[in-house]
Amino acid sequence: MGPTARRGLVILNTGDGKGKTTAALGVMMRAWGRDMKVVMYQFIKARRMRLGEHRAAERMGITIRPMGRGLTSASPDLEEDRRLARDCWQKVKAEIESGAFDVVVLDELTYPLSYGWIDLGEVLTTLGGRPPGQHVIITGRRAPEGLVEFADLVTEMRPVKHPFPQSVKGQPGIEF
Amino acid sequence: MGPTARRGLVILNTGDGKGKTTAALGVMMRAWGRDMKVVMYQFIKARRMRLGEHRAAERMGITIRPMGRGLTSASPDLEEDRRLARDCWQKVKAEIESGAFDVVVLDELTYPLSYGWIDLGEVLTTLGGRPPGQHVIITGRRAPEGLVEFADLVTEMRPVKHPFPQSVKGQPGIEF
Repeated sequence: MGPTARRGLVILNTGDGKGKTTAALGVMMRAWGRDMKVVMYQFIKARRMRLGEHRAAERMGITIRPMGRGLTSASPDLEEDRRLARDCWQKVKAEIESGAFDVVVLDELTYPLSYGWIDLGEVLTTLGGRPPGQHVIITGRRAPEGLVEFADLVTEMRPVKHPFPQSVKGQPGIEF
Repeated sequence: MGPTARRGLVILNTGDGKGKTTAALGVMMRAWGRDMKVVMYQFIKARRMRLGEHRAAERMGITIRPMGRGLTSASPDLEEDRRLARDCWQKVKAEIESGAFDVVVLDELTYPLSYGWIDLGEVLTTLGGRPPGQHVIITGRRAPEGLVEFADLVTEMRPVKHPFPQSVKGQPGIEF
């Protein structure tokens, strides 16, 4: 297969800077513009959330599924977080295998991977066996080395300058 | 003004990696989902192009204006490229000053800046005098140091791994 042939890529957006999820949204927008089928599963963002991306997705007829409970650092029940992450992975696995989507985004998958809640080997096996043309985009900090090795395209978003402390929320419509 | 107050940010996505324009598209999608008014001017992409982002924008009722002639490295007429870049900047300047948009994206502005076709001082003066709530996002490699200093939020997209040589086109719907 030549370099210009169409093949599904595994794309990893990692690093401590901004733009990991946002760039994945941009890819979804482009692919949607080309009539490709796209879906995003969010491993951390809480089910009740209606962020900018959720509002946009509704209008576009795109599915973005927040499957978590928000930041785990503020969580009183890690067992529940773990259960939600594993539940999300089971749904993602079935979605990938179904081949119903051209682009599958796994937003913040790196966190449950780094906590050991989801087994990296199982993820790589699922990615390796996915339909050939399917693109998978994974976002989040602290990507495990095995995932970096497996991915076709890896970008580190590196913060050069940031206007507010990490604990302070950013601007609506820009950062969420 | 406290850190949670709404104020317009100047955001710069730079570096040699993927995701600079794509993350700007993601911000546009989020902001559009929150009923904010968004526009993108593309300094390099050619007017005739109908890329994934152009198709998506049409459906969403968003304006993305390619104002260039494609990659200047392949161009036989640099004077014409320079003229197009300056023309694009004049339109952008008027658009910023009009205050009609909440988010203005200046895609690949860094190139005409680095070639000296557009004056950095004039750009910074225009950005400094823009309506207070307006966000401006600038993308492109080789951002001038003065622009990095001026911006509120700067992210470097750093290529960790790339699947094909720079000269080979990527996947439709994913990279364009």
